[in-house]
Amino acid sequence: MHAERLNKIAPFRVMELLERAHELEAQGHKLVHFEVGEPDFPTAEPIAEAGVAAIASGQTKYTAALGVPELRQRISAHYASMGVEVPWERIVVTAGASGGLVLLHALLLNPGDRLLLTDPGYPCNEVFAALVNAEPVRMVVPASEGFQLTAEAVAAHWDDRMRGLLLASPANPTGAVQEREALAEVIARVRSLGGFVILDEIYQGLVYESPRYRTGLELDPDIFVLNSFSKYFGMTGWRLGWTVVPAAAVEPVARLAQNLFISPSAIAQQAALAAFSDAAMQIHETRRREFARRRDRLAQGLQELGFQLSVMPQGAFYLYVDVSGTGMGSEDFCWRLINEYQVAVTPGIDFGDHLAERFVRFAYTTDLASIDLGVERIAAALKAWGCACS
Amino acid sequence: MHAERLNKIAPFRVMELLERAHELEAQGHKLVHFEVGEPDFPTAEPIAEAGVAAIASGQTKYTAALGVPELRQRISAHYASMGVEVPWERIVVTAGASGGLVLLHALLLNPGDRLLLTDPGYPCNEVFAALVNAEPVRMVVPASEGFQLTAEAVAAHWDDRMRGLLLASPANPTGAVQEREALAEVIARVRSLGGFVILDEIYQGLVYESPRYRTGLELDPDIFVLNSFSKYFGMTGWRLGWTVVPAAAVEPVARLAQNLFISPSAIAQQAALAAFSDAAMQIHETRRREFARRRDRLAQGLQELGFQLSVMPQGAFYLYVDVSGTGMGSEDFCWRLINEYQVAVTPGIDFGDHLAERFVRFAYTTDLASIDLGVERIAAALKAWGCACS
Repeated sequence: MHAERLNKIAPFRVMELLERAHELEAQGHKLVHFEVGEPDFPTAEPIAEAGVAAIASGQTKYTAALGVPELRQRISAHYASMGVEVPWERIVVTAGASGGLVLLHALLLNPGDRLLLTDPGYPCNEVFAALVNAEPVRMVVPASEGFQLTAEAVAAHWDDRMRGLLLASPANPTGAVQEREALAEVIARVRSLGGFVILDEIYQGLVYESPRYRTGLELDPDIFVLNSFSKYFGMTGWRLGWTVVPAAAVEPVARLAQNLFISPSAIAQQAALAAFSDAAMQIHETRRREFARRRDRLAQGLQELGFQLSVMPQGAFYLYVDVSGTGMGSEDFCWRLINEYQVAVTPGIDFGDHLAERFVRFAYTTDLASIDLGVERIAAALKAWGCACS
Repeated sequence: MHAERLNKIAPFRVMELLERAHELEAQGHKLVHFEVGEPDFPTAEPIAEAGVAAIASGQTKYTAALGVPELRQRISAHYASMGVEVPWERIVVTAGASGGLVLLHALLLNPGDRLLLTDPGYPCNEVFAALVNAEPVRMVVPASEGFQLTAEAVAAHWDDRMRGLLLASPANPTGAVQEREALAEVIARVRSLGGFVILDEIYQGLVYESPRYRTGLELDPDIFVLNSFSKYFGMTGWRLGWTVVPAAAVEPVARLAQNLFISPSAIAQQAALAAFSDAAMQIHETRRREFARRRDRLAQGLQELGFQLSVMPQGAFYLYVDVSGTGMGSEDFCWRLINEYQVAVTPGIDFGDHLAERFVRFAYTTDLASIDLGVERIAAALKAWGCACS
């Protein structure tokens, strides 16, 4: 009775691990959580206060479908502060980056059209393609090359039915930030092939080295860019994001947004106006530096245990780690780790096929003490299991 | 460059009228707004307070994709209080009823499948079908029969590609509430034809006579029901609704929801927990009675001017009125009324084809004094235009 697209949607393996984690916690165990793709910090106080003020002042009605102009202008000013000019009319406020993905897939893809994705990559991307009956084509970004995408790889996968590329940088699950030159070449190649580029920048605020570029819009002003208030701005549960579209796409996206969403959350929009204030930005930057410290601590701890990191991921809050040296498959590794040592990590199978049986994702969305505890427990596990990993 | 479905999505005509209304207001004119499909009341205080408390206590993270169990259980208790048993596990919390429509279309429709809709009807419904490349088929619910749907009409429109029926009761734009027996027959007929029924009950709380049924789930527990916190509960800008699905659909809907939405707004969910409190329900009921008074006042005023209402609509906050007696088409009528008399109403063309050139929608989402002023202005217009309308 269900539509065929349901056959293409696998449940996330991590959900079963999460259930197990909850069970163990209910039994009184202290879990170390490396599986959570969500900042552990609360929403910054200035944002929370603005949300409270929005409710108190009755700003709880439908808004314009593309978002309130003040917020679109504030996001435009945010780009301007980075030296990139993005007219506010091209900025569409959405119900999370998820809402932007619905709009762009509806805008750009006919049934049977192909969309190029990366393997590994954000697992939900295939489902947005399935929603509009397009066909996702996963292109390997090799672990051995730091999960970087090249223009050559794009060209090698292109065919007559291919319509565009959806690429995340920084990426989930790898934390890889695309090299500036390589990204410019990828974009130029897709465009020369007549395709569109959707660049997922939801982790763009969370880069820990000096940034290679501020936004892909620097390289080509007419790509589609997804962004979110969830990660850098710490507003996951508010469900708000934004999408930058080329000028010609604004009117059709508005028609889609009016019909499919009516409007984004009025309260979240008012709250997000405060996300760019000096006070809030200081909090976000402090948290970014804390994420950098966590990354370094976790990476060092894992490396000392013998795990190899081919390159240090520059962004997001993930390390994607080859655990094959333990002699276990990645799912076995995850299950034994949670059952025997109460440490939760996500198996690679949730992110694609490329070396999925070897890799697991560590999210450093937990504090330094928990990271230390997690590394200690893994050390104990390796010792007990008789693994060297090196 | 845009997907073909964009060709099927017309802009709402009322948007141009809205722009004109804003212009006129900017020029200092007092507008009478009969075009707004949103309650004019603020969100009830107990709900607002719960929203504030949710933010203050940091409940701003992702939740379970189907919604927090407490809210699903509270909605189940709401049905129980009406004497209808709906297990909480079958209740899916969504980003407005719009979110529910995305999930159900993704769940139920393959490309090329047909979905039966009503004409007139909620204009966005066709766009959800277009999103998944299904084909909406509009079936006339005749003005002459009080916009009621019959099992015979359903059977007459059924064909091999038809998969189901999406029906709203109370309906937008007509306010029509389906007769209990007729609805039971419609549901039984669709089911005997092997189809699914999606019943849109977002206006179900706003019924002004003794209800013909509490929910369509009373008539068949295995239909899909859409509902919303927007209309009766006054939470439009919070973007929250719910959908009741058959038990077998819970797991696939959960997979879709995880991938396409991650979760509904955490804050809106906490706020909605207070929507069923005695204090909030008293406010909602007071407002429902006020809507009833407005309906009666507007209907009487229009009838005294010579407009015919074939039946008094029993629900929602709309009157769908034949203005052909003025000698004008409905769009002309709307434009002359706003330009010459600063009264905004929505032309029928936004809701379908059936007699669309004759009908306009009045929303009584404005206070009694504004309704009186609007009726006075229309009286003056008819006099000036030399129309009798009778």
